[in-house]
Amino acid sequence: MKSLSDSHIAIIGLGLMGGSLAAALHGKCRVVTGIARRRETVTEALACGIIDRGTTEAHEMVGDADIVVLATPVRTILQQLHDLGPRLSDGCLVMDMGSTKTRILEAMSNLPPHVQPVGGHPMCGKELSGLAAADAKLYSGATFILSPLDRTSVEALELARTIVEVIGATPLILGGARQDQLVATLSHLPYLLACTLVQTADATTSSDPAAWQIVAGGYRDTTRVAGSDVSMMLDILATNRDAVLKSASVFRDKLDQLTSYITVQDEDGLRDLLTDSRVERQRMFP
Amino acid sequence: MKSLSDSHIAIIGLGLMGGSLAAALHGKCRVVTGIARRRETVTEALACGIIDRGTTEAHEMVGDADIVVLATPVRTILQQLHDLGPRLSDGCLVMDMGSTKTRILEAMSNLPPHVQPVGGHPMCGKELSGLAAADAKLYSGATFILSPLDRTSVEALELARTIVEVIGATPLILGGARQDQLVATLSHLPYLLACTLVQTADATTSSDPAAWQIVAGGYRDTTRVAGSDVSMMLDILATNRDAVLKSASVFRDKLDQLTSYITVQDEDGLRDLLTDSRVERQRMFP
Repeated sequence: MKSLSDSHIAIIGLGLMGGSLAAALHGKCRVVTGIARRRETVTEALACGIIDRGTTEAHEMVGDADIVVLATPVRTILQQLHDLGPRLSDGCLVMDMGSTKTRILEAMSNLPPHVQPVGGHPMCGKELSGLAAADAKLYSGATFILSPLDRTSVEALELARTIVEVIGATPLILGGARQDQLVATLSHLPYLLACTLVQTADATTSSDPAAWQIVAGGYRDTTRVAGSDVSMMLDILATNRDAVLKSASVFRDKLDQLTSYITVQDEDGLRDLLTDSRVERQRMFP
Repeated sequence: MKSLSDSHIAIIGLGLMGGSLAAALHGKCRVVTGIARRRETVTEALACGIIDRGTTEAHEMVGDADIVVLATPVRTILQQLHDLGPRLSDGCLVMDMGSTKTRILEAMSNLPPHVQPVGGHPMCGKELSGLAAADAKLYSGATFILSPLDRTSVEALELARTIVEVIGATPLILGGARQDQLVATLSHLPYLLACTLVQTADATTSSDPAAWQIVAGGYRDTTRVAGSDVSMMLDILATNRDAVLKSASVFRDKLDQLTSYITVQDEDGLRDLLTDSRVERQRMFP
């Protein structure tokens, strides 16, 4: 297996995640090829100097690459693994950056045997999408989950780890089901809550023009992730449905418990619960 | 009624809010007196140079002041209005900075007739509490709600408005019940959701050490206000119970609707709801 600096890497999808990866890896590989659906995206990426070559035709290009990274929404990744797998070069490392892993790892296990798959999930992002939001420093300091399969060679996992480290992230090896349950609570549920809070404000306060003047920091921060890309989130929710519903159900029970303390004016119970939440939050983010 | 620069202002409570107010007003009034429960707090505020005089004895001091600002938790404010009202000087402006207004305005309406009450609520804060977190710039750029009573004179309201403007905030005149319903959704509910999300993570992920490595920005932002001061929040929840429970109930219904789309895999309904939330969020915070 070639070293990263000797490799031709093809990144499929030049949105926020793929564009940022190209920007972070450009100059650190032999060739960076960018593949996007739209011609204008490819032209823009070439003009920015974050890719060496570009095309809209993944089928024609992937056979030349030593490393292929799928930076598209989860269900597109599933389709691309199926379509492109047979065209990949011998020993090619194929990685993805999808936010849910169970379904992707399942699709990766069906790839032809000459390919080396590793699931990937960088724990970062922002509420902007598209190439214009790409940033070579996006991954800097972030945790980057890597999920090797049983069939993945030690060398392939090492190469994936090198990519992660070169872009400034910290690799964390984690199985698919475990990561999906964790991100259901720590990432997907916060998104649902943010959207629901926006809907609640819309139903209860939006008719009052004063609402706009008094929206405080709490509301702004709690709703921030409601600005996330909807197509990306739909794929995430569709491919992590059980884990997300389980987390939402626990949340609902906990909210009922909290509001019941308020309803019955059990101030001691309420104080304990709020204090516990505060301590726990401060422990996570000192 | 004296101008602000000729006034002796007494601030009761030298925590984050009162300490920041003292810092912002010091040098802009004839005298700033700070009143705190603990002797050390008074000593510290004097040492910082944010007050001219200090005492732990509100009863002895308030009669000298032209303006009294209550910067204590809501239920303490209710008690202090009752206890200190008769001791206030003739024509004294009495303001508060409590986060709920209905109960406070009710207590203000029972003040002796020689006093001029105006309810106040600055829409800012941070997750740190106490004098050490005080900051002369805390109010800069914030909306500061003012709730005059029928009995409040034009001059008293103008003086309150001057205070708000001098500390860099923007006054917004709003009635008590209306502000309480608005902040229930825009401030108190986000706090409950933040605490509940912390409880949910505690129940579903905290046993997994990887959780600490993958907590992403969404979780961090959505839980930020769970770090708020618990005593302050208990007073808020106790004095805005009906409005908070109403907002929480709407939230619960909206969350049920969202999760039911996920459960039955109604992707069109889900897309519409998520897109609407995104657009609405971007409209509020462009």
